[in-house]
Amino acid sequence: MTQRKTQSNIDKPQNSLALADVSYVAGIDIGATNLRLALADMAGAVIARWSSSTAGIRSADPVIALIREGVASLLHQVAAPPHALKAVAAGAPGITDVDEGIVIATSYLMGWRNVPLRALLEDALGAPAVVDNDVNLAAIGESWIGAARGARDFVFLAIGTGIGASIVLNGAPFRGTNWAAGEIGYMLVPGTSDGPGNHGEPGALESLIGGEGIKTQWQKLWHSHRTELAKDLTATQIFDHALAGDALAQQILQQTARMLSHAVYNMTLVLNCPLFVLGGGVGVHPALCRATQALLEQRNMRSQPQLTPSALGTDAQLMGALRLALDTAASRPALFADQGAGRE
Amino acid sequence: MTQRKTQSNIDKPQNSLALADVSYVAGIDIGATNLRLALADMAGAVIARWSSSTAGIRSADPVIALIREGVASLLHQVAAPPHALKAVAAGAPGITDVDEGIVIATSYLMGWRNVPLRALLEDALGAPAVVDNDVNLAAIGESWIGAARGARDFVFLAIGTGIGASIVLNGAPFRGTNWAAGEIGYMLVPGTSDGPGNHGEPGALESLIGGEGIKTQWQKLWHSHRTELAKDLTATQIFDHALAGDALAQQILQQTARMLSHAVYNMTLVLNCPLFVLGGGVGVHPALCRATQALLEQRNMRSQPQLTPSALGTDAQLMGALRLALDTAASRPALFADQGAGRE
Repeated sequence: MTQRKTQSNIDKPQNSLALADVSYVAGIDIGATNLRLALADMAGAVIARWSSSTAGIRSADPVIALIREGVASLLHQVAAPPHALKAVAAGAPGITDVDEGIVIATSYLMGWRNVPLRALLEDALGAPAVVDNDVNLAAIGESWIGAARGARDFVFLAIGTGIGASIVLNGAPFRGTNWAAGEIGYMLVPGTSDGPGNHGEPGALESLIGGEGIKTQWQKLWHSHRTELAKDLTATQIFDHALAGDALAQQILQQTARMLSHAVYNMTLVLNCPLFVLGGGVGVHPALCRATQALLEQRNMRSQPQLTPSALGTDAQLMGALRLALDTAASRPALFADQGAGRE
Repeated sequence: MTQRKTQSNIDKPQNSLALADVSYVAGIDIGATNLRLALADMAGAVIARWSSSTAGIRSADPVIALIREGVASLLHQVAAPPHALKAVAAGAPGITDVDEGIVIATSYLMGWRNVPLRALLEDALGAPAVVDNDVNLAAIGESWIGAARGARDFVFLAIGTGIGASIVLNGAPFRGTNWAAGEIGYMLVPGTSDGPGNHGEPGALESLIGGEGIKTQWQKLWHSHRTELAKDLTATQIFDHALAGDALAQQILQQTARMLSHAVYNMTLVLNCPLFVLGGGVGVHPALCRATQALLEQRNMRSQPQLTPSALGTDAQLMGALRLALDTAASRPALFADQGAGRE
């Protein structure tokens, strides 16, 4: 494997004296373009971070190798031995069987099918592992220390390249019969195509208001209108221009907010859920949240849902992974030989 | 109150000898046009039925008086004393706070607002009562002895005059934060209006594919096409004509099935739910179920949901009410003075 650029930093300076009885957990966010790791102490405080590009990597083995490298680097940073790692949790962007620890399917960007990620991680790291869908992890993060603290029922709605949701009911993500609840990127609302889509292609909703969809909509509008702005803008840049008053960018913002409001409305009808946390690179933009909330309020609903941007931003998944890793360390301490015994 | 036509019959001939230790429960289905009651023994076998028109009645008091009359008639039919009634359960067509026993709001047909139905029933009947939304009761009935036996997660989708759903998760109806989960008559899909609706008016989806909506669609089509068929047909009659080969009726069936398939698809995306039971006067029509299933199968979904017509038909709510009444009799036996003690 070729050497990749990796980046690491210690959030808090550590005493160079390694204490034999210090324990850690690691959170792992596997993205289509980046791999991000965080090491936390057993109180959940982040001690160190590490990240690496995964561009061009599709199969699971090199990702596992990178994770092993990252975890070793993190433990080295805090001068801790391998057995100081008590548990890890990883999130992948795909449908994940949490019970079996298998990533059933990811989007075309990674193309994973039935990857036994939990077993691969446990073999590579020698610590108990748990795996979940990345949007569910983000919801768990927001529920723990973010915008959904104290919420029993809420939806975390991630808009990045694509769109997905985590449906949190009674304090835990609802998974559905085949671990596929919340795949709302395919939702049909007024304005979307209503034809049958194809596996591996963007869904009806995300093809219009996912990050790539918004860029495409902008480019269509750009061709037919006069504007000083560039043709190649990201969704976030377009929303920034909308905030700054550009009429064409405001048109894109409004049509995005309109479709998003339809999707939120439909989910509210089904779930009667009071809170939607908007996350993902596109979803966290405050202009999108405000415009969508305004459209929903025009609907005169009996139970008006509240929209709020993610409080944790790009850290949401990683924080959720740390929360799960802490829970796993507490519930499965004896799964592997614990060489850190005798701490009393 | 004027005298109304009521109807009663005993499902099984009873011995005229009243046994002091025989106990019963009653199920009550409060509809906008009919009130239906059933009396069952403690094994859940229906012993007697009673029904009455409620056309023109809007307020709760005369409905309670009718229920009292019906329960007295049922107990008289089986020659049982009032204290033989151990519990009742009632379903109303509206948003219902099950914990407090209050019907928060029904549609314009009844216009109830914050009716303390449980307390009214307990006062009138002297037995523990429980109240729920009628679609939730139908789901409970199908789960108990109908098309959803053994299903952990399913949706009961009722299409009558309007459209509503009961979202059964982990074996029980999911209520939502304000008891309003499943209000899918307002769902926005391709082909519906996307403007804000008004309270008390039909929702975007049901205005097109609820019973009244289907009639309206037929009448529109009727005006612009040659047909031997009558202008005034019910949704069920139109579907019957579609089955018999009438092209215009088939067009209505197909456009109804298309929109229904969009709604089922959207719910499947959110919930990853494997089973949809179609009920209500319009929803049970087998042609609608088959046409909708065929359209869903064209979608090439990873987890194809199964559609099936209600097994209990118009009895679904009543059976669900009996199930809840039996549960209530078991869980709240000491709430009222039990004059049937000493059965050993």
